[in-house]
Amino acid sequence: MKKRHASRGTKQSQPGYHCRGRIWIENNGETFLGFGRVVLLELIHEHGSISQAARSMEMSYKHAWDLIDSMNRQAGQPLVTTNKGGRGGGGAKLTAAGQKAIKIFARLQQRLAVFLSQETKKLGL
Amino acid sequence: MKKRHASRGTKQSQPGYHCRGRIWIENNGETFLGFGRVVLLELIHEHGSISQAARSMEMSYKHAWDLIDSMNRQAGQPLVTTNKGGRGGGGAKLTAAGQKAIKIFARLQQRLAVFLSQETKKLGL
Repeated sequence: MKKRHASRGTKQSQPGYHCRGRIWIENNGETFLGFGRVVLLELIHEHGSISQAARSMEMSYKHAWDLIDSMNRQAGQPLVTTNKGGRGGGGAKLTAAGQKAIKIFARLQQRLAVFLSQETKKLGL
Repeated sequence: MKKRHASRGTKQSQPGYHCRGRIWIENNGETFLGFGRVVLLELIHEHGSISQAARSMEMSYKHAWDLIDSMNRQAGQPLVTTNKGGRGGGGAKLTAAGQKAIKIFARLQQRLAVFLSQETKKLGL
C-alpha cells in the first residue's frame, strides 16, 4: 500500500511526557474534514472505488457514502465523483477539490505535529 | 459555579470553515492529563470532595478515583490528597502539583486556541 499523507503521527508511545493532539475542520459547526475522512479520500484515490476503499478501512459502504455526501455538500462541489453503470460500474475518483482537501489536511497535521513537539519541550513537568 | 480554566473553547458553531482540535498529555504512552481529568481536578478544588466533584460532572466515584490514581501514580507524587475518616471524612484537596497541572493544561489549551485560530485564517478553503 502506498504511503498515505494522513497519519496519526502523534500516537507512538515514547518515554516521558508528550503533548498529543487531534485536529479537524468544521464548516458551520459540522465536521467537514478529519482524519478518517481524509484516509477515506486517499483510499478512494488508490482503489478508484468507494466500496473497495470502505472495505479496506473496515467501514460500511453506507457510512463511507454518508461521509462523502457530507463533504461534497459542504464544499458546494464534489470532492469525489462516481461513475454509475457501464463496465466496472461504481468507479469513483477524486476531483481537484478532493485532492486539494487532502493536501490542506496533510499540511495542517504537519503543523500540528510541530506545535505539539514545541509544546512538549516547554512542558515543565 | 466559578469559571474554570479548562474550557472546550473550540466547540462553538461559527459560520465558515474553522480548525478545531483537542490536546492531551501522555506519559510513556498513557494519558496523564486531558480535558476531563483537568475538569475533575478543578471540581475537587471547588468542592473539596472527590464524590461531590464526580457527581457534579456525572462521573462515577470509581471512575473519578481511577483517574486520580492514574495521575498520582504517573506524577510520582499526589495531585490530590484525601483525608479519610474524622469529621466530614472523605475530604480531598489539590496539592501544589495538582494546581500546577491545572495551570500547565490551561496554558496549553490557550496556545492551542491561538494555533487553531492562525490555521483557520490560513485554510484557503
